[in-house]
Amino acid sequence: MTWSVLHIVGIIAYAASGAFVALQVKYSFIGIFVLGLTTSYGGAVIRNIVLDVPISDIWDRQSLLIVLITLTIIIFLERKWVNHWKRWGYFFDSIGLASFAIQGGLLAKSLEHDLGIIIIASMFTGVGGGMIRDLLAGRTPLALKEETHAILTFLCAICIWFGWSSPIELTIIVIFVVCIRMLSFHNKWRIKLPCNRFENKNL
Amino acid sequence: MTWSVLHIVGIIAYAASGAFVALQVKYSFIGIFVLGLTTSYGGAVIRNIVLDVPISDIWDRQSLLIVLITLTIIIFLERKWVNHWKRWGYFFDSIGLASFAIQGGLLAKSLEHDLGIIIIASMFTGVGGGMIRDLLAGRTPLALKEETHAILTFLCAICIWFGWSSPIELTIIVIFVVCIRMLSFHNKWRIKLPCNRFENKNL
Amino acid sequence: MTWSVLHIVGIIAYAASGAFVALQVKYSFIGIFVLGLTTSYGGAVIRNIVLDVPISDIWDRQSLLIVLITLTIIIFLERKWVNHWKRWGYFFDSIGLASFAIQGGLLAKSLEHDLGIIIIASMFTGVGGGMIRDLLAGRTPLALKEETHAILTFLCAICIWFGWSSPIELTIIVIFVVCIRMLSFHNKWRIKLPCNRFENKNL
Repeated sequence: MTWSVLHIVGIIAYAASGAFVALQVKYSFIGIFVLGLTTSYGGAVIRNIVLDVPISDIWDRQSLLIVLITLTIIIFLERKWVNHWKRWGYFFDSIGLASFAIQGGLLAKSLEHDLGIIIIASMFTGVGGGMIRDLLAGRTPLALKEETHAILTFLCAICIWFGWSSPIELTIIVIFVVCIRMLSFHNKWRIKLPCNRFENKNL
Repeated sequence: MTWSVLHIVGIIAYAASGAFVALQVKYSFIGIFVLGLTTSYGGAVIRNIVLDVPISDIWDRQSLLIVLITLTIIIFLERKWVNHWKRWGYFFDSIGLASFAIQGGLLAKSLEHDLGIIIIASMFTGVGGGMIRDLLAGRTPLALKEETHAILTFLCAICIWFGWSSPIELTIIVIFVVCIRMLSFHNKWRIKLPCNRFENKNL
Repeated sequence: MTWSVLHIVGIIAYAASGAFVALQVKYSFIGIFVLGLTTSYGGAVIRNIVLDVPISDIWDRQSLLIVLITLTIIIFLERKWVNHWKRWGYFFDSIGLASFAIQGGLLAKSLEHDLGIIIIASMFTGVGGGMIRDLLAGRTPLALKEETHAILTFLCAICIWFGWSSPIELTIIVIFVVCIRMLSFHNKWRIKLPCNRFENKNL
């Protein structure tokens, strides 16, 4: 299991997640393409804008082709297959989250930025695509309600900052992120913060 | 009927469409200006970001002045004139769609990009402004529900890719797009896709 | 009361306003960080994109640190303190509006742009952050419904265009903006436009 395989799995997972959200809100096939493309590339576009890196670097022909093929297959899938896939969606989405957060962090690190910018780059790459997807689907962004997303991208950023960069180290991060996220999902972990503590009484 | 006339008609139509959406959701005059400006320029801004072309090229003084005058006139219109205009809105909007999609495609073509990037540039220029407009108005983007938009920008991109660039050829594209779109609107054409087929049973 | 103090007050006020919106819509701590950061920096990011100025200039280490500390403090505040702060929120937010609009205008002026671009730069810097904040919180942008915002940023832009740039002149603008905005809020000033006049009858 090498690094580029993880990247491809991540980009397919994000494209599929965008396409399924488009199906849920009953968009036509153009909505499936737009949401699929924005989910897989949106985070990277925001990151490159914020870091002043040229955006055309993102459009490498191989990954774009894979994303477009994935989206076309989803359009021609029967609905029962869509439901079948959903069980696996959360798992692939976690791989995508880890893979995207690591890429964002590595890019910021390679530009010799501080920890602060590395964290912001990790977070936007991992979470930004999903945020644009949810906005375009008329939903409030899921990523802003769920802590796990953010904490895990934060951990990725810290590891990158410490200099982790070999394929083995990056694979360890991905496996760790996927395990924690699946555990958090099954056990419904939530963090209690002082600012949320009295919300039932006051609202 | 030359090419620059079509461009001006398109930009006025998009500015007006933004202004009318702002009136529908009861925004104040600032909402009318912001939605008018984002609808006419938003698509081009997204396209230039994605293609790494400087954005200040978009702000040519002549078209900006025309947009601002159009929006000011709409603010001082009586509401009955607004309703009267609506009948023509769909027609002008179709001219705008064709004119913007062609511009986006020509720009990508002049940068010697592939068909894939030409399609993305056409689509974002034609549809992007309307998507930002709908987001700012708190509505789910219309362009993601209606197939015609996307298929027509796709056709524009293909024609550009084949090398159509003379005023006559571009005018033919615009007339074709407007005819198809008006026909599609009147006859309520919809495309049935496999992924949408069982939606009534499952949801 | 010098200029840099006003800038710091403005950036804290905008960060806090983003954080409180995140609390109102029950986002987790990541939502507080994302909305706080987008409200304080979003306007400047949009402005720099539109003016083709590098975006990494925005991330100066001092202001970023202050914003992050502010947001962390808000996360650990008890809810009753949040309610207490709200009374002051509108006041600080007005300082932020003036300070941001002035900065946007000064930047556009220093690039030798026209009045039109100075106005657009002032408006996006002053109002853009709040618009992204409201979109991410799933609300229609407040700034598009309230005229005062826009008229005041417009006035800031005019003053900048006339060449006001000394700390005393800028402080006068800020005090004027804050006074007018508080008065407009208390007296519920609204502007009647022809296009809104018959809205009760027609809808």
